[in-house]
Amino acid sequence: MVDISLLGCGGGMPVPNRFLSSTLINYMGRKILIDCGEGTQVSMKILGTGFKAIDIICITHGHGDHIVGLPGLLATIGNSGRVDPLTIIGPVGIEEIIKGLRVIVPYLPYEIKIIENPRDTITLIENISISTLELDHSAPCLGYSFYFKRKASFDLEAAIANKVPKILWNKLQKGESLIYEGNKYEPNMVLGRERRGIKFSLITDTRPIKEIIDFIKESDLLICEGTYGDDKDIEKAIKNKHMTFSEAAKLARDGRVRDLMLTHFSPAMNNPEEYIENARKIFENTVLGEDRIIKTLSFIDY
Amino acid sequence: MVDISLLGCGGGMPVPNRFLSSTLINYMGRKILIDCGEGTQVSMKILGTGFKAIDIICITHGHGDHIVGLPGLLATIGNSGRVDPLTIIGPVGIEEIIKGLRVIVPYLPYEIKIIENPRDTITLIENISISTLELDHSAPCLGYSFYFKRKASFDLEAAIANKVPKILWNKLQKGESLIYEGNKYEPNMVLGRERRGIKFSLITDTRPIKEIIDFIKESDLLICEGTYGDDKDIEKAIKNKHMTFSEAAKLARDGRVRDLMLTHFSPAMNNPEEYIENARKIFENTVLGEDRIIKTLSFIDY
Repeated sequence: MVDISLLGCGGGMPVPNRFLSSTLINYMGRKILIDCGEGTQVSMKILGTGFKAIDIICITHGHGDHIVGLPGLLATIGNSGRVDPLTIIGPVGIEEIIKGLRVIVPYLPYEIKIIENPRDTITLIENISISTLELDHSAPCLGYSFYFKRKASFDLEAAIANKVPKILWNKLQKGESLIYEGNKYEPNMVLGRERRGIKFSLITDTRPIKEIIDFIKESDLLICEGTYGDDKDIEKAIKNKHMTFSEAAKLARDGRVRDLMLTHFSPAMNNPEEYIENARKIFENTVLGEDRIIKTLSFIDY
Repeated sequence: MVDISLLGCGGGMPVPNRFLSSTLINYMGRKILIDCGEGTQVSMKILGTGFKAIDIICITHGHGDHIVGLPGLLATIGNSGRVDPLTIIGPVGIEEIIKGLRVIVPYLPYEIKIIENPRDTITLIENISISTLELDHSAPCLGYSFYFKRKASFDLEAAIANKVPKILWNKLQKGESLIYEGNKYEPNMVLGRERRGIKFSLITDTRPIKEIIDFIKESDLLICEGTYGDDKDIEKAIKNKHMTFSEAAKLARDGRVRDLMLTHFSPAMNNPEEYIENARKIFENTVLGEDRIIKTLSFIDY
């Protein structure tokens, strides 16, 4: 199970009850944060998630509403007792941005590693791979997709046929090769069919470029920017390099995702719920993001 | 009348219902902000104060809990339509800090002027003078004191004795010299006694050094850090260069201020009200700061 907590659903600037962009992934006690707008720490405090276990921070882009909370959070992570290195991933220029922001937190009790604009899928935490896509915004900006691998099924008949001692079953299923009482045992002696993992994608801020469709393909959850609810705001969306609700819904539909959650609402949009039908008539499984809404994604057998 | 709004009363890191250090002065529609911790914009939005009229931002020091919100706020001020220059005052090193933080807001529609560690009293807005004091904290840190000048009283008898035409009374009282129908008129022809203005001081973060007493002398309001409520935390206060409630109260008493408001509460202190008596037994007119509490200071005739 993977918990996705939307910490802030606002775009541009914070308004009451709407902090700025930030999303927390919690998987088996390891945490990945995507963006760190103003209010991130407050939402984490309210949820009681703790700060020490944040291993990776993915930054979409260097605009204030996505990154202002970062230096404060880095300090808080330091105060939480973290000494293990922390990795920050971001678009072209992220190293320079981190360097600038760290002027107010020059000393931290842990090392920060920076990965700038990774083009290949990377695995920093076992069984979690992270892919990025260059988006179309007014600053270098990355979309993120996370894949949580699931163990293959256990094939009882194969295990028995291969005479694998029961004491080794669990370790072999996890992928370890073992030598036991002089015999060698391999994972494929107990493993059945591959099983689908969990895919979670997050797309903000951008115009709806066609590359997104492949990138988010069959995600269990897509969190996607819907800066403007009203279709009439399409010109603003084009000018400011954002999306309308219906543009986000088309991506979700064409990418065949299971669920869509809209986020990054314009501060000028007081009631996003007024416009939800603009998305639902295109993609039914759409919900509006809210600060501190938590969505739990489970492994599913097809 | 001067309105002082405490936007955030937390120290260290934000906790629910306690944003970080920030205080807004509103005087005749002009605004001065002191510190800009995380949550500053949210509090301003809730209060509906507007952003465009912020002429001066005073930074006490470069620790995250006092400055993290700055780049986001500068962007929001830009979005509010401001084109007039904005002045930032701060301790030694502030120019370098601003330069670092502006990596995420490199382009603003207004100019930023920086005044680093001013040693003399400065007047940037008519009738408001700003003084600073170097405090004793773990980073270069300034205390601030603001004096709002009041017009001298109007001396009706003098105005009549000096045969000043009624049409000139108001302008002369404001301090203008005028020529009218060939005669020269000076302010002192209508002015009575000098009247005391309003003094507001803000002291955070620091140990209670003796220089503070003179600096805050006879303030109408002192907002002062009280990081620790319990007197037993004195060793922490000394080590971390902060104050206890009772240390702040002694400064208020010795400085003969009218009212003391405590702020910058440690995130470990859940209920500051448990300790309020530690301050009140030393200085009775003590109140606890709360996010978005507003205190109005009026000119008083003695």
